[in-house]
Formats: sequence, C-alpha cells, structure tokens
Amino acid sequence: MPTPEPAADRAERTHRDRPLYRDPTAPLDARVRDLLARMTLREKAGQLNQRMYGWDAYRRTDDGGYELTDALYAETDRFEGLGALYGLMRADAWSGVDHGSGPGAQDSAALAELVQRHVLQRSRLGVPALFVEEVPHGHMALDGTVLPVNLAVGATWDPALYQRAAAHAAAELRARGGHLALVSALDIVRDPRWGRTEECFGEDPYLAARLTEALVRGMQGEPAEFFAADRAPVVLKHFAGQGATVGGRNSAESELGRRELDEIHLLAARAGVRAGAAAVMAAYNEVDGMPCSGNRALLTGLLRESWGFDGLVMADGLAVDRLARITGDKVSAGALALHCGVDLSLWDEGFTHLEEAVEKGLVDESVLDAAVARVLRLKFRLGLFERPYGGPGLPSAEQGRALSTALARASVTLLHNNGGALPIPASVSRIAVLGPQSATSAHQSGDYTAPQRTGSSVLDGLRELAPPGTDIRHARGCALTGGDLSGIPEAVAAAAASDVAVLVLGGSSARSPETDFAANGAALTAVSEMTCGEGVDLAGLRLGSAQYVLLDAVVATGTPTAVVLVQGRPHVVPETAAALLTAWYPGPWGGDAIAEVLLGHAEPVGRLPVSLPRSAAQLPVHYNHKDTEYGGYVDESAEPLHSFGHGLSYTSFAYGPPRTDGQSVTVDVTNTGPRQGRTVVQVYLRRLITPTWPRTLELFAFEGVDLVPGECRSVTLPLDRDRLAGTRSVEIRVAESARAALSAVPAVLDLPGRQSLTAPAETPL
Amino acid sequence: MPTPEPAADRAERTHRDRPLYRDPTAPLDARVRDLLARMTLREKAGQLNQRMYGWDAYRRTDDGGYELTDALYAETDRFEGLGALYGLMRADAWSGVDHGSGPGAQDSAALAELVQRHVLQRSRLGVPALFVEEVPHGHMALDGTVLPVNLAVGATWDPALYQRAAAHAAAELRARGGHLALVSALDIVRDPRWGRTEECFGEDPYLAARLTEALVRGMQGEPAEFFAADRAPVVLKHFAGQGATVGGRNSAESELGRRELDEIHLLAARAGVRAGAAAVMAAYNEVDGMPCSGNRALLTGLLRESWGFDGLVMADGLAVDRLARITGDKVSAGALALHCGVDLSLWDEGFTHLEEAVEKGLVDESVLDAAVARVLRLKFRLGLFERPYGGPGLPSAEQGRALSTALARASVTLLHNNGGALPIPASVSRIAVLGPQSATSAHQSGDYTAPQRTGSSVLDGLRELAPPGTDIRHARGCALTGGDLSGIPEAVAAAAASDVAVLVLGGSSARSPETDFAANGAALTAVSEMTCGEGVDLAGLRLGSAQYVLLDAVVATGTPTAVVLVQGRPHVVPETAAALLTAWYPGPWGGDAIAEVLLGHAEPVGRLPVSLPRSAAQLPVHYNHKDTEYGGYVDESAEPLHSFGHGLSYTSFAYGPPRTDGQSVTVDVTNTGPRQGRTVVQVYLRRLITPTWPRTLELFAFEGVDLVPGECRSVTLPLDRDRLAGTRSVEIRVAESARAALSAVPAVLDLPGRQSLTAPAETPL
Repeated sequence: MPTPEPAADRAERTHRDRPLYRDPTAPLDARVRDLLARMTLREKAGQLNQRMYGWDAYRRTDDGGYELTDALYAETDRFEGLGALYGLMRADAWSGVDHGSGPGAQDSAALAELVQRHVLQRSRLGVPALFVEEVPHGHMALDGTVLPVNLAVGATWDPALYQRAAAHAAAELRARGGHLALVSALDIVRDPRWGRTEECFGEDPYLAARLTEALVRGMQGEPAEFFAADRAPVVLKHFAGQGATVGGRNSAESELGRRELDEIHLLAARAGVRAGAAAVMAAYNEVDGMPCSGNRALLTGLLRESWGFDGLVMADGLAVDRLARITGDKVSAGALALHCGVDLSLWDEGFTHLEEAVEKGLVDESVLDAAVARVLRLKFRLGLFERPYGGPGLPSAEQGRALSTALARASVTLLHNNGGALPIPASVSRIAVLGPQSATSAHQSGDYTAPQRTGSSVLDGLRELAPPGTDIRHARGCALTGGDLSGIPEAVAAAAASDVAVLVLGGSSARSPETDFAANGAALTAVSEMTCGEGVDLAGLRLGSAQYVLLDAVVATGTPTAVVLVQGRPHVVPETAAALLTAWYPGPWGGDAIAEVLLGHAEPVGRLPVSLPRSAAQLPVHYNHKDTEYGGYVDESAEPLHSFGHGLSYTSFAYGPPRTDGQSVTVDVTNTGPRQGRTVVQVYLRRLITPTWPRTLELFAFEGVDLVPGECRSVTLPLDRDRLAGTRSVEIRVAESARAALSAVPAVLDLPGRQSLTAPAETPL
Repeated sequence: MPTPEPAADRAERTHRDRPLYRDPTAPLDARVRDLLARMTLREKAGQLNQRMYGWDAYRRTDDGGYELTDALYAETDRFEGLGALYGLMRADAWSGVDHGSGPGAQDSAALAELVQRHVLQRSRLGVPALFVEEVPHGHMALDGTVLPVNLAVGATWDPALYQRAAAHAAAELRARGGHLALVSALDIVRDPRWGRTEECFGEDPYLAARLTEALVRGMQGEPAEFFAADRAPVVLKHFAGQGATVGGRNSAESELGRRELDEIHLLAARAGVRAGAAAVMAAYNEVDGMPCSGNRALLTGLLRESWGFDGLVMADGLAVDRLARITGDKVSAGALALHCGVDLSLWDEGFTHLEEAVEKGLVDESVLDAAVARVLRLKFRLGLFERPYGGPGLPSAEQGRALSTALARASVTLLHNNGGALPIPASVSRIAVLGPQSATSAHQSGDYTAPQRTGSSVLDGLRELAPPGTDIRHARGCALTGGDLSGIPEAVAAAAASDVAVLVLGGSSARSPETDFAANGAALTAVSEMTCGEGVDLAGLRLGSAQYVLLDAVVATGTPTAVVLVQGRPHVVPETAAALLTAWYPGPWGGDAIAEVLLGHAEPVGRLPVSLPRSAAQLPVHYNHKDTEYGGYVDESAEPLHSFGHGLSYTSFAYGPPRTDGQSVTVDVTNTGPRQGRTVVQVYLRRLITPTWPRTLELFAFEGVDLVPGECRSVTLPLDRDRLAGTRSVEIRVAESARAALSAVPAVLDLPGRQSLTAPAETPL
C-alpha cells in the first residue's frame, strides 16, 4: 500500500479556502452544523459505527514497528473514514495481545498516529476517528497504571483520592493517543453472585454517585467546552439496572419497576450526568421487558429530555443486533436503536446499515443527524480536528503507582480482630505467609486488566516491611480452585513453626491466555482459575474447596492467624481465625498496602461497600431494603454477616448524639483508643412518614475523619434537602456502619408538608 | 343480657310498611340505594369493618351449647350492627380453638344463627353480618373436608376435578352458616423459600389462571345475580405480586415493574375476575414502593376501571393500619385505603375511624358510600336479607373424602424411576415403610388447616392396599427436623430385611398448639416441627438434617428404595434412590393415594407445577424466564433439576410434530408403553419476534389425555389469539415438560402485523 498523504498536510494545503468547521475560532455548534451539512449519508452512518476490534487494525513488523492491516483498510473504505475504533491499545487474553506484541507506554501514541493518519486520508472531509479504550481501573493497555477495582474504590469511601487517581488514568490514556474512556461506574451490587460485582462501587446508590462524580471530575476535569490535553471524556457504564439482573446472571433480565430503578440504580448516572459525563453506555440487560438499547423512554425520555443530557449514548457490544428479536431483522434493529437514543454502536451489524434504514424510511435522517452531531461535537471538544494526534507526555509512573497503592491502602478493611491479634506486634519474629494468594500479585487486579510486568504480593510486602531479621516462611498450601490438598501439610508446618500466620485466600478474575471468552462460564473455569469477572457468575459464593481445608488446618495449629481475602465479590468464609481482612482486588501493588496494614504501618480505614452474606441461600442482602418487619428465615437470619459500612480500626471511636437544624447534621466524634485512626462518619436516614414505602435506612452523607488519640471533633455535614422532598418526618442516625445505625440515637426532623391522599394514591402502578 | 328479638320477627312485624330494600322482588341496585340512603354515617362505617376475631364472639357453655361474649356485644354496640365477622368457625392452633371447643359440623350453623340474630337485633335497619371464613383448601373449621394444598392442585393440571372439589367446599361452608370464602389463588411461586409456596398453584400464570377460574366457578357457580344456597362467593388472595417478594420473605417488598407484574402475576386475578369472582384481597406487600392496600392505580385504576371489576376489595389483616407510615396516622391511613379502593378492612383500627375521616374531609362520603354499596350488594346477592341464617344440609362427607383423595391421586408426581423400580411388583412380599412422614397424616395437610380427626398415612394406605400376606414393616427413622440419628439403625434393619423400601420424607406446616404466630419465624420452629407455612420461610430449602442421613443409610442397604416427598415447597433432595415421588401436601387421605400409585393401582399422572431447584444458590429457577443466552454459573447450572411440567408415567408416550392453522394446534399422541396412562399435553409458545423481550417459553394450553397401550389420538387445542397480540412470529412446541419443549420440533406461526418502531419504542419505562 502506498503511504497516504497525511490529512494534516491536506488541511494545510486547503487552508486558503478553509471551511467553517475547520475554523477553531468558530462556535462549536456552528462547526458541527457546517460539517454535518457537507456529509453524505454514508459518511454520516460511518461516524456512528465502531465495528472492528482495534487490535485487528495493526500488526507488528519484523523491525518492531507497526503496519496497518487489510482489515482496517477495508473498514475505512466501507465507511469512507472511521467513526470510532474500540480497543486499539487493549492488551489482554481476550484481545490476544500480550507482552510480546501489544503497544507499550512508549509506542502506542505512534501507533495511534499511524491509524489516525490513515483515517484522515480516507475521510473526504478529514474527520478524525475516536479511539475508545477500556479504562475500568486504569487504562487497559500494556504498562498502564492499574488501580484497585471499583469495589475496592468503594471501600475507601474517599472520592477525593479516587478523583486524583482517575485524573492520572486519563492523562495516561491521552498521552498514549486514546480519547474516550470506558469505565464501569453505574452498576450497583444487588446480587454478589454476579461476576461483575468487582466493577461496582458497592450496593449503595449514594456512595456510587459520589464516586461516579469523582470519576467524571477526575477524568474529564471541568471543561467549559474543550477537554484539556491530559483529560479524557468518560463513557459511564452501564445504563441502567445491570446490577439487578435476576440471580446475578450476567446480562439476564432485570424485573425492576420504575421506583426501584430510580431510588437505587439511577442515582449514580444522574450524578455522573450532572458532573458533565460526556457519554453513557446503554446496558445489555432489559429493564422490565425493554432492552436498554431499544428503550426510548430510558435513553431519550429520561436521560435526554428529563435530565438534559447532551452527550453521547454508546451501545454495549452487539447489543443493537439483539434487537432483531423485537424488530425482525438487524437493519430495523439498528433503526430502532437509533430511534431510541443510541448514537454509537459497538461491533453490531445493524448500525452498518443505517444508510439503508434511512432510505427505507425506517428512521428519519434528522434522527441520524442528531446522533452524528453528538459524535462530531465530542471530536471537536477533544480538539481532534486541530490536533488529531500527538499529546501530552506520559505522567510519572511513580505517581501512578503511589496513587494505586494509596487507594489499595485506603480500601483494606478489617472485619474482625479478636483480642487485637492485629496489628502484628513488633515483637513477633516468625511469620508464616500462606495461601494461594500470598505470593503472587497475578490475581490482585481483577477483570479487564492488561498483562502486568510488575506487582507486589503480600509476601513481597511483608518481606519489604517487616523488621530486619524477621523469619518469614512461605507455603502456598493450595490453589485458588479445586480440591488438591497435597500442599496443606507444608503450610501447616510453617504455621506451627511461626508466631503468627497470615493466610491469604480469595478468588481470581485473571483471564489466562487460553481462555475462550466466547464460551459460557463453565468453559472458562476449565482453562483458568477464574472465579469472578464478566461472565463468571458464582452460585454458591464459595472459594475453592481446598481453601476451606487449608483455613481449618492452619487455624487448628493454634498459631494466631490473620486471614486476608483478595477477592472480587463477597465469598462465604467462616470467621474462625483471629483476624479477618478483605482487600477486594487491590491492584498490582496491593500486597504492599496489605502488609502495611498487617504490620500497623498503616491503619485499616476501609469500610464495606457491600453487605457480606452468611450464605448464598439468604440472598439478597443489602442494608437498604424496604422497612418491613421481617423476622428471618427459620434456618437462617435475613441479616448479613457484616453490614454495609462496617470496618474496624486499630483504635476506637465514640459518637455523640446527632444535632440538626434541618440544613446540616453535626456529631461529636472522639478517638477513644490508643492509636491515631480514621473513622468514616456515616449519616443515615430513616424515613418515618413518606409517600412511598420507605427503606430501613438510606446513606445520606459521609466523611472520613482522621483523629489522634483523645481528639474530639465536631463534624458537620450538609443535608441534601432535595432528597427529602415529600417526606414529612425522618430520623437522622449517625454511626460507623448501617447495622450500628439501627441502634444509634436518632435526631428526628419534621418537615413541612401537608397530609395528602392524592400524591401517593395517584402514583402510577 | 335479655334475649334479643330476632330480626326476622321484626321484619315480619313491619311488613305492612316494608321499605324497598326489603322487597326481594325489587331490582338489586335499587335495594342497595334504598338501604344506603337510610343509613347513618356510623352505620355505614360499621359495614366496612371486620375488626374482631370470630372465635372471640362466643364461648362454650357447660351444657355444650354456645353463648355470646361481651366482646361481641361491645363490637355490635360500637358499629350499631356488624359489617362482617372473620373466622367465626375457624379452628386451629392460632385461633386457639381446637377439637374440644370449636364448632363442629353439626352445631356451627346454630352458632352462626345465634350470632346473626344478635347482629340483626342490634342493627336498626336489620342489616345482617357477613361471615367470612378461611377456605384455602376446604373450610378451615373442625370436621371440614380438607383438600390437598394448592401446590398439589397445581400438580393435577385438572381444572375440572378441582372445580368439583371447590363446589363441595362451598357447599360445606354454606351448610355451616358461613358466607364468604377466603382462598389463596393469585400468588405465583417465584421463590420457593417463601413459606406460602404451598398456597400457590405453581410458577406459571396460565396454569394458575385456569385453576383460579375453576375455583371461582366451583365455589360460586355462575350466578346471574343471586348465589345459590350451596355456593359461596370467593375472596381471591392476594392481589398482587405477593409471590415476588424479595428473597421469598413473607410480606416483604416486591420490586417488580409493570410488565413483569402483568405477564406473570396478574393473569390469575384477571381470569378470576372474568369468571365473576365476588371479591379480591389486597396483598400485604408493596409493589415497587406502593403497598397494595394503598395503591389506587392497582385497586381502582387497573382492577375496577380497566377490568371492570364490580366486586369487593378486602384488605389483608392489619394492612390498612400499616399505611400510617405513609399518611402519618391510622385515621388517615384508613381514609387512604378507602380512597385507593379498599372496601372492607380486617382487624385494622384505621377503618374504625372512617366516620371521623369523612367528617374531617380526609375522604369524601361518596367514596364511603360506594364501598358500603359493594358490601350491601354482596349481602343481597347472598340472599341474607331474606335468609339471614339456615341453609342447605351438609353435603356427603364420603363425597368430600372421595374428591380430596381424587385430587391427591392426581397430584402424585413421579420424578424419576430408574429401571422401573415402581410400581412395586405384585411379587414383592416384604415392604419396609420408613421415614418421619410414613406413619402419620398429621403433616399431610399444610398450613391453614383445622385440627383433623381422620386421615390416612402412607403406611395406612399400603397396609390397606397391599396384597394380603405382604410383610409390611415400619420404622420412623428420624424426626422431620433436627439431627437425632438414634432411630436410623432400626430403619436400616427394616430396609435390609425387605424386598422394597418406601421412604417418606418431607416437611410440615402443621402448627402445634403452643406455636406463637405473632413471633417471628425463628421462634416458630423452636416449638414445632414447622418448616413451611405462612411466616415460615426457609433459606436453604433443606429437609431436617437427619432425613439426609436416613436417606443415605437406607439407600446403602441396596434394597430398592422409593422416596416419597410430602412437602409444601420444593426441597433439595439428592436423587440417589431408585425412584422419587413428590405428593406435595396431599391432604388427610393422601396416604391412600400415594399407596395406590406406589402399588400401581393408580397411574402417576401429576406434573410439576414448579421447577425443582438444584440448590437455593441457583434461585430463581422457573422455566418462563426471559430468553437470554445464559451459560450458567461457574459452579452450578442455571437450569433446574426437574423442570416445570415434568412427571413420569408407568407407561410412555410419543408426540408427533404439531400442526397449526393459526386457530388451533393439533398433535398426535400415542401410548407407546405397556400400561394405560395419562399424559398432559403441554403447548408452549416461544415468541420469535415480539415487541418486548420474550420469555424462553410460555405455557399456552394444556389437556390431560388418557390412552390405553397402543392407542393414538389427535389432540386439538385452541390457540388464544389474544395472547398473541403484537407478536409477529412464534414457535409452537408441544411436549411433556418445559424442558422437553426446548428440544421439541416447533410449528412456526407468522402473524400479520407490520414492522413498527413506534410501538416498542414508546412503551413506558
């Protein structure tokens, strides 16, 4: 293939008669209108497609460079340009791109430029492509800074810290030539059997909303019009109700009604839209019969018309084609999705036929134009017409690692600590570090993670941080999955010969290279140790069976044992050891953070973002169920083992009674223990008189407060009066967990409002 | 107290100036209007209350008669009459009325007359009271003919048989002086952890609709205006969505959206209303935030306005008072419920203040009048003004027993039968009859059952029916609950010494006298063997632990073993024995029916009305989930152990391919085995192109067909075109179970209808 003339050169050549859309000083909307008016129907349809996998656009040459593939040529021919390209830099088992061939930190910007130059060459009007990348917890590309998974971020209860980490991830993405960041944020955990539980900020809509807001602000900044060169627009995934699919089954149906959707599943999206999110992704699932990609009431009525969202709606992969079950064929499926509010498709055939759909009258060209305008507007906002490639330099890798470790440190959650077994006393000279997660960081990073060249296990962290001369013994004991018990005696011997045992158990969402993603979940486990992640739903919430045998055997030695769980969802683990920590998936350097907490170099400040069930048989468990007097099952409590918000400290805190003037709530918090520490002040509502049936508790505000021993501080948090609309009487309870809030002394707030039969009675069914 | 003058006498006395409402020849509506116009506000409010327990209205005298209590005098003074009285004849542990003091078959009509005479005496206008009785599976009074529970009725797939049994129950009720029958019918099993699973006809809305229709026709007949003296108006329970409460938790929230509610939970109610049901009961639960008793969109918008229902809406016990959480106090809670569509309260304080509510302007008197008119209308339709007491004679007890046993026989379901272990060959001379359910009928009748004086266990049945000289040994082995293994060796010895073992396991919904119903579920099991029933939800779906040990031990003897489950919900039971039957709760004479099937005197013709889960961890399992390609959990299938519709025969059947002309479907069915038998032809739909996301399968029609060996019959079933509205292409599959239908050869039916983006797209969120 001859080298194409770069579009930038051509733009220069045509400068003397530069069209309006090329004038960076012209108003953005005018540029969009001008460009749109010049486009053919085919060119427009091309802007709405994202049909090929980005990793199929290039191949490595013998000299270590890149060359473009026939697949890319065909694609740009077909659409006379290219709207968007998904996963150009994605490296993982699924993309088949690994250490050997994936673009690294130093050369992916060059790869992006190579592709973009080709796109501009093929585009009559010089419309650049959007490079869309997975950035669920850091950019999913080789050498990307991997952050803890969202569930761990939820455990930090620290939006400010997360905002800084999100900004770092955006800067990395842009430095490498990527534009648009796909990030899970909107899914709410309602059933931990779901393999994507790790991608959620937790079970609470308010906590998720605060973190989604932080994500959007961190990644995007607060752009008036143009995104800064080191900021990236965000696609918030998934809209809506995906956390509520029945049985925790991936992309199954959600049967929710409108109020449940509103109160639990839409708050994070609403917060993200208010914070200026550039895009949302329509979820795979249906909500009460209507697939989200074909749900005009959701995507247009609610999102655009009620909320005033003016950004982009992307469909999830192949979700548009699925609508053929409703329309009869893929062409009309594409038309339906467009009509309902989808702007940009992912991999579908349906959207490639939009030209035909318009010509057949299945959808009006004005609807197509509106979608194209939204895509073009985003490209203008990114400055791609002026700077189609090139970008800021890479941010410091050390800063990235520091932010990732800081999130991990803030997420480690101490669930129980009998007799103060933790922190490990400085006098301890022999530590046994045991378990399948103890000496590897390979399983610390969750699903949607690029292959990692670096990391720190718990064993690494303890070796680094324990006092010199500490005798640290290691034995794996068993694998994550399966029932092979052959390694257990060695682990028992190590525990018996030590003063303290640290037993690191858990699950894994690491896809082995031979994993076939397209196969069903059962096939996945046959070729990897995956027990979590997308498509890996777990009915019983059980760890591999050998892990339980290992736990029992180590505890039986009598050596004080701290169990650490590295996991992407709650698992059922008996609390027989002296201490129990969960770190969720803490990222590649999570072992350092865990070791710091174990040794008391850092305080355990994480708080549960999900309730921990006693067993799968009692699901669902979440603290914010409706306020019905339920006494429990005859064979099991309906209450979780540990409630939302729970997390112990190495010190203790006392809370005074809350005071409220109706605008804010104030509580005196005292560190009553021997160490400095951080308590997360959690403000809960209990609605006493309210138009629809109330929940037992609702998280209403929170703030982390650091206190030295003996220190007392009055903490004042504002009350969001909007959330009290319609409620006539409410209790405000402040505590260190949802369970503690149930017995906390409330402040009662009576609100103006007259008794009316009409409001609740006329509420639609 | 002086003996009151009977109202009938007074009516006679005032005959010369008889008001219109007393004229039986006047039009019914005119009589209602006339009476209503004469009533004071207090008298009207009184008609809407059902505040006291009927069993508190009387006490036994020393001579074995009855006398009225001060409580009844106070109640009739307060309301200047009495609207309705709940449970006058109810006898069970909860009411505290048992064998010793409860009204029996011979004297309850006299008791009803005693109370009615008093009510008429206290009522200025001579308005009789409605006697409202629980008739969930037969009248819940001492000596009432107890039928199998609804789940067993569901297993019969035989609406015609059930209609006859329902007619018998109504005749018994009326003969004893009762009027209005409370019957569970509308709840659909979506989570078998729920203790009221036994009260449901199963998981399928169409099967439930057909049986609800049969119930209404059987109990009520098809009255033009007046009910026959041996028929009883029905209150269909519960409206709506109670089977969908989260976690199978009794009266917890249901989060369903409107379409799921429509497609699954409203069909039975719709069918019942179409069949002329006199009343429905608003359910305890909320649906998506709105408690049913305070849900005007449900009770008025849908039920009355859309469906044209002109009957009575009763609230569930104390459900109106709960609305104070919405309105702020009980007075306005009563007003809200009335405004929303509740006519008759049960036990609430809120409705006793309706006079005050009207005077305060909380609700308009015209709303009150409409509710009173509905109550009065029902009393006129029952002929109570002409015949306030007295009634037809009791129907034959033998007929009742025969109908109950016939339902039990038709419900016994053969789940597996390896190598044809059943029926027990005539050559067998030694049978061991084992297990906690084998020698007692005390646990065969489910919740809401009066104390029984009669019954037949499996042991009774086998002793009766086995060939003379058969050596039948019995050992209980263990109790229903708990882990006491001391009886197991005896059972093992009996099995080892026999040619065949019959092991009868299961659960119990029998309330022991000391059970405190008001306590939560956990307390209930402490004082009884209850593992099922209202308020007895079971997280793990496990039998008592000793039953599993007994099963393993008996199977290990090598003696061919048939396991029989007597249960009110699916339990998890390994299929290690040669054969497995479930009889659900088959009623007092169920043992006879089970023995007939075991011995081959009757064919096993029951079919599962619910899917049987592999474990609680895979819930929910029901065949009619949405059609998503779900591969299952990594640790467990998402498919049930046995699917809806499953049930083996002692013979076998072959189905030809279905043929359809669009109006009906025809299939050739052949008995290909050695015995006569009955197959239930099940017609399922699979919608291919349809406006909202389709289910995998939907039961569309069914019919039981009896065939002798070698016989072939063409079975034609009509297609209900209303249910196909909007669908453009559909497969029709005919098979012996939902699972078999998945691999059955379909007939494809394409339906007229043009492709439209508007219909699905504009569907509300």
